Amino acid sequence: MNNSFFNRFMPQEPKFFPMLNSLAAVIGKASGLLKECIDKKLNEEDVESFYKLIKEEERNGDRITTDIFNQLSLTFITPFDREDIHDLANSLDDIIDAINSAAKRIWLYNPKGLPNESKDLANIIEKGVARIQDSINELHNLKKDPKHISQCCDALHDLENDADDLYAQFIKRIFSEEGNAVELIKVKDIMHELEKTTDCAEHVAKILKTIIVKNA
Amino acid sequence: MNNSFFNRFMPQEPKFFPMLNSLAAVIGKASGLLKECIDKKLNEEDVESFYKLIKEEERNGDRITTDIFNQLSLTFITPFDREDIHDLANSLDDIIDAINSAAKRIWLYNPKGLPNESKDLANIIEKGVARIQDSINELHNLKKDPKHISQCCDALHDLENDADDLYAQFIKRIFSEEGNAVELIKVKDIMHELEKTTDCAEHVAKILKTIIVKNA
Amino acid sequence: MNNSFFNRFMPQEPKFFPMLNSLAAVIGKASGLLKECIDKKLNEEDVESFYKLIKEEERNGDRITTDIFNQLSLTFITPFDREDIHDLANSLDDIIDAINSAAKRIWLYNPKGLPNESKDLANIIEKGVARIQDSINELHNLKKDPKHISQCCDALHDLENDADDLYAQFIKRIFSEEGNAVELIKVKDIMHELEKTTDCAEHVAKILKTIIVKNA
Repeated sequence: MNNSFFNRFMPQEPKFFPMLNSLAAVIGKASGLLKECIDKKLNEEDVESFYKLIKEEERNGDRITTDIFNQLSLTFITPFDREDIHDLANSLDDIIDAINSAAKRIWLYNPKGLPNESKDLANIIEKGVARIQDSINELHNLKKDPKHISQCCDALHDLENDADDLYAQFIKRIFSEEGNAVELIKVKDIMHELEKTTDCAEHVAKILKTIIVKNA
Repeated sequence: MNNSFFNRFMPQEPKFFPMLNSLAAVIGKASGLLKECIDKKLNEEDVESFYKLIKEEERNGDRITTDIFNQLSLTFITPFDREDIHDLANSLDDIIDAINSAAKRIWLYNPKGLPNESKDLANIIEKGVARIQDSINELHNLKKDPKHISQCCDALHDLENDADDLYAQFIKRIFSEEGNAVELIKVKDIMHELEKTTDCAEHVAKILKTIIVKNA
Repeated sequence: MNNSFFNRFMPQEPKFFPMLNSLAAVIGKASGLLKECIDKKLNEEDVESFYKLIKEEERNGDRITTDIFNQLSLTFITPFDREDIHDLANSLDDIIDAINSAAKRIWLYNPKGLPNESKDLANIIEKGVARIQDSINELHNLKKDPKHISQCCDALHDLENDADDLYAQFIKRIFSEEGNAVELIKVKDIMHELEKTTDCAEHVAKILKTIIVKNA
């Protein structure tokens, strides 16, 4: 931000791209585990094992995000605006946190069953995460070719809309069908966190779009 | 932020004021629709129609906010600090999101009835939104005459306090009266989102106060 | 941020340290009141008195935070990066808000009893707040001796983990034991807010760590 003048004359520091790629890879692992955890009909113990694996990825994500923040504090030259890299790392970390929180609720609440729509949401999350990994991989190339990242952002927006519709459909259904209030609380809270994960993914798209506007 | 030096010598870019005014107008429409939706005793289908109209305004708000962010990225000279315009647009958009979310819950949850206090909250929201529109209209004049905006901010603070008291009263009542846990969840969630809308409006006031301190 | 060059040659403005200390003192009072309110078996009226005392501290916290923001807008030279002081004040204020919100829920929801784990969480909150007060007291000395603050940050991280485990244990227990959905909603919401308070305390630690990386 305060180095725009020197930016034009000095070499760009490339280390942020590998760090962001690692963060995207962690999200990929976490969302794969979440999908597996939801797809399989697991007993309480197995869900706990899955949650612990996801929690491990959440810690990895935290570590990488902290590294990125520290490097940002210490680096004079950044490939994009300092605060955009900060927001991007933060928003990627938010996805892992949401995945972790969803898995934690499945483990803690131990519902009698997960609603069918949870599988659809896990699918949407996985598709979105693939788009995010794709975008982050292309980030070093953004100034030359922003189109591919831009298309990923549009896809993330559409996926969030799909998740929204699915969640609405689920809420309508559960409030008219489920008489057991405690079970309703459980699945509503779990589904809310899954839907929030797709919001977090769309938020990444918004930050990427800002970076495109500023740099492409 | 990084242009404070040049700011003193170059003409101010005025296009942000009309964009913020459009955003405030969208909030006005959304809050009017919300009030109508709550005041009338509507059947499920009519509530859905209202929600769809509000959702349309939410999309308009998104579009204008994105425009403002993009213009901020591309404009060298801004009438106030870049990040204050960013926060202001963001906080205005948060109000529309909260209104949209409240309407969505009324539609999705389809409660047997809305509590009486919901009408009072919708009134408070509409009064607050009028103050916000007023403030945004006066924003171009802030450096010469900050008093009017300052009074609006005080009013928004008082309205939030009123909403807080109303919500507290509602929660006390519903937890002692409502035996049906599912209905309790529905109206508590809806009322929470209405109360949150007034928090969002007060947050706009806080950002306006910061702008006054820096510029008036 | 944009004054790093002058920073080296001009005297540092010291008034932010006393203001941050006052804010930390307000958190101390609020957390002490919360602990007392949870430890004692109080009737509804006494809980209301405690809540009102805590609300008073929340208002004090707001006042000091607003003062800090205003001073930040008006001061050219700040002891640390402007946005770090802003984030620090904000995150301290978030702790008071969470304490206030927890107390408010205890008062409004009026549960038949508070779960035993709530006392443990109140203990953790008080320990964390003591670490925060300690850190803020040492902040003026951070450039010379960052170790003590760094240790406090580690302690806050551990306390948040303990709170997490306690909350998980509580959720597991309550969902298998509590048949009354309305009582379940009450204690779950209250415990969630108590757990959130420890997240807020850990967030302060993260901001302090950023300040250490940049300045020590």
